[in-house]
Amino acid sequence: MADTARHDHTSRQLRMLSQALDSGRLGPVRRLVNTLSPAEIGHLLESLPPGKREVVWGLVDAEDDGEVLLHVGDEVREALIADMDPDELVAAVGDLDIDDLADLVEDLPDQVIDEVLKSMDRENRERLEQVLSYPEDSAGRLMNPDVVTVRADVSVDVVLRYLRLRGELPEHTDHLYVVSRRHQYLGRVSLAALLTHEPGMPINELIDDEQPAIPVEMSADQVANQFSDRDWLSAPVVDGNNILLGRITIDDVVDIIRDQADHQTLASAGLDEEEDLFSPVPRAARRRALWLGINLATAFLASWVIGLFQATLEQVVALAVLMPIVASMGGIAGTQTLTLMVRGLALGQVGFGNMRALLTKEMLVGALNGLVWAVVVGSLAALWFSDLRIGLVIAAAMSINLMVAALAGVAIPLLLRRLAIDPALAGGVVLTTVTDVIGFLAFLGLGTALLLS
Amino acid sequence: MADTARHDHTSRQLRMLSQALDSGRLGPVRRLVNTLSPAEIGHLLESLPPGKREVVWGLVDAEDDGEVLLHVGDEVREALIADMDPDELVAAVGDLDIDDLADLVEDLPDQVIDEVLKSMDRENRERLEQVLSYPEDSAGRLMNPDVVTVRADVSVDVVLRYLRLRGELPEHTDHLYVVSRRHQYLGRVSLAALLTHEPGMPINELIDDEQPAIPVEMSADQVANQFSDRDWLSAPVVDGNNILLGRITIDDVVDIIRDQADHQTLASAGLDEEEDLFSPVPRAARRRALWLGINLATAFLASWVIGLFQATLEQVVALAVLMPIVASMGGIAGTQTLTLMVRGLALGQVGFGNMRALLTKEMLVGALNGLVWAVVVGSLAALWFSDLRIGLVIAAAMSINLMVAALAGVAIPLLLRRLAIDPALAGGVVLTTVTDVIGFLAFLGLGTALLLS
Repeated sequence: MADTARHDHTSRQLRMLSQALDSGRLGPVRRLVNTLSPAEIGHLLESLPPGKREVVWGLVDAEDDGEVLLHVGDEVREALIADMDPDELVAAVGDLDIDDLADLVEDLPDQVIDEVLKSMDRENRERLEQVLSYPEDSAGRLMNPDVVTVRADVSVDVVLRYLRLRGELPEHTDHLYVVSRRHQYLGRVSLAALLTHEPGMPINELIDDEQPAIPVEMSADQVANQFSDRDWLSAPVVDGNNILLGRITIDDVVDIIRDQADHQTLASAGLDEEEDLFSPVPRAARRRALWLGINLATAFLASWVIGLFQATLEQVVALAVLMPIVASMGGIAGTQTLTLMVRGLALGQVGFGNMRALLTKEMLVGALNGLVWAVVVGSLAALWFSDLRIGLVIAAAMSINLMVAALAGVAIPLLLRRLAIDPALAGGVVLTTVTDVIGFLAFLGLGTALLLS
Repeated sequence: MADTARHDHTSRQLRMLSQALDSGRLGPVRRLVNTLSPAEIGHLLESLPPGKREVVWGLVDAEDDGEVLLHVGDEVREALIADMDPDELVAAVGDLDIDDLADLVEDLPDQVIDEVLKSMDRENRERLEQVLSYPEDSAGRLMNPDVVTVRADVSVDVVLRYLRLRGELPEHTDHLYVVSRRHQYLGRVSLAALLTHEPGMPINELIDDEQPAIPVEMSADQVANQFSDRDWLSAPVVDGNNILLGRITIDDVVDIIRDQADHQTLASAGLDEEEDLFSPVPRAARRRALWLGINLATAFLASWVIGLFQATLEQVVALAVLMPIVASMGGIAGTQTLTLMVRGLALGQVGFGNMRALLTKEMLVGALNGLVWAVVVGSLAALWFSDLRIGLVIAAAMSINLMVAALAGVAIPLLLRRLAIDPALAGGVVLTTVTDVIGFLAFLGLGTALLLS
């Protein structure tokens, strides 16, 4: 539901394109591709299998090449760059904004970087070096140093004359920043305020000094949260001495938010958000093998627990038939609690302040559902194997496992975070290990005690 | 990683607040709460257990009440509204923008709606009715009818005089819209252009007519995709006759993007994104019971498959010990493919145009990993039970199940979408049912054939 519309639209384009490519008619493909925005071309390239991908990449207008490279995942970007010769690359990235160029620079061949640096004027070269000096995923890397500043002691008409002289403003400029002589950030003036006030009005009466500046070292995730919690369209970036360094705009923040979401979804399956949909098979297989290996270890642990009860299983084969039910219900219930917790942690809504209340609630939910499903599963199992004791065993094991699942669902993400391990990545594996082990242990243990006596 | 910073910051606040609340000192709580933005207060209220939540809600500045209600999930909103008397509610929502009021109106008691409508002037009442006439999750519901329009045949100085006379512009205005006499949308003029051009410049030379208008019936998800693919900050909304109806701004779009992400994460665990972290226990239990019930049915199906092989299990108990490994590895591998597919579908990157190439790639990855892990698991099992034939059986079953998992991971989301079922919600359940059933069937079937002869 969440995405049917886009799907329908894009999948139609994809099919048309695919047919045109198959038939070898490149004219219509070129026309179709160049009606798209760079982000859309990026999406399209990501969705094409190698072979077709290179053909379409060759048809993209040269002037869009740089922007398109910004809008694809790391793996696809590498492949596209490998497909271009140095001159093309220099031309493609030469016109990018400083912050965008900084994004790409590490993926470029040295020779291309040298050429690009040589073609820049000194001011821009210094700006690029400054942006690159900040860690990846920090505000410093997100900011564009190209900002329009004014002084507080002039009037609106002075600013208007200056702007008319200056001509075009940097893209997505909604405010001018007011700075001191030492370039310290004092506040901002909206373009709207400049337009709606009389020419004689002094700037210092129009200053909005409520907008806090972002420290250059703030993490990209925190920047994104501030933007979305406070409905900002842009924000100034300053260093430790409150010197204005640049500005971050909402369009870059939207990309971060999308990446965060991608990470949450993909990490739970042990996948990397930069992975190419059409990675070469050996590379994709190798990467996924790691995740399968971890899960194999946990599966063997569960098998080892079952192995402890071989004597029981030989005598009561019904336990072998029913045991996956107890483990799987525990896994499902625990995953529900875990998912709520991981989201709560990501939103900063879960912490030591409300942990006990949450645990109580989740345990009660687990107990209630444990009881309900224990009765249902117990009755069904007793009927199936015509043995009331089997029903009692599975009912008791189920109740225990659902309570454990609730406890594990709350505790595991908190523990993982303590250990600085990403709960979105590792939470599911650890949780299902617990619910499998406890599920088999409780069920087969109770079975041994009750049925073999 | 993705969220540590926010977590640390907010969880500190949460703890401070919790302590202050426990000690009953409400002064510091009030001061702390009212330094937050409405969205942050919303997050905070969502994170508080009932009891504390009502206390903090009572401390929020009355003027922020309306905005806070906009920033909480449906369930929490209901609870907060139930906590206010009608006069408070009328005061809280009376000052909201039309699009925001439309968001809330269905949750308000009739008496309050009447009061609010009575207090509005005729123009705003008509605008509200118009916005409400569009379906939820459409562009019509997202738009704010409050836009500033100009004619094409005037010059910059006429517009400047008009704006100075008008005073303040609606929040987040970055463009004025140019309309015909019949109010048809012709294009837009950026505030930046008005500021950087000479007063004598005619508006029709500044018009940007490249920005397409959004049809009022476009789905909210599609609107969000357009904004993020094309780096828009705002966009005009028109009806079928190209009459300008309003404008959508990026801050509302950011909320949609966050909701989409939430949906993807929570749906896979059968959870609703509007659910309150502190739902009353019976309500939370009832809702989750449905999901557990569905999974119970699939677990019984898997048990039934195992039950077909009771005779085998009685004779070779090692099969009972090892069988969960085959099923669980299939589930893990299949979930990886499924997760990539669901994301690809959401981004419009997967469709009938590239389905075959994707299927081939995923099947090859499955085959390669099937082979590798078959050897590993086969050797380990053969050693454990000192029986080469058991090793062979599990190796063969594992290879089969990983191939089936790849096929199912590609096919299930495409089929579900064909049936208009949300793959993010149902994909996981259907997939693990397939990998469980095929895993047990292949392993126990091969075991029966090879070991009982």
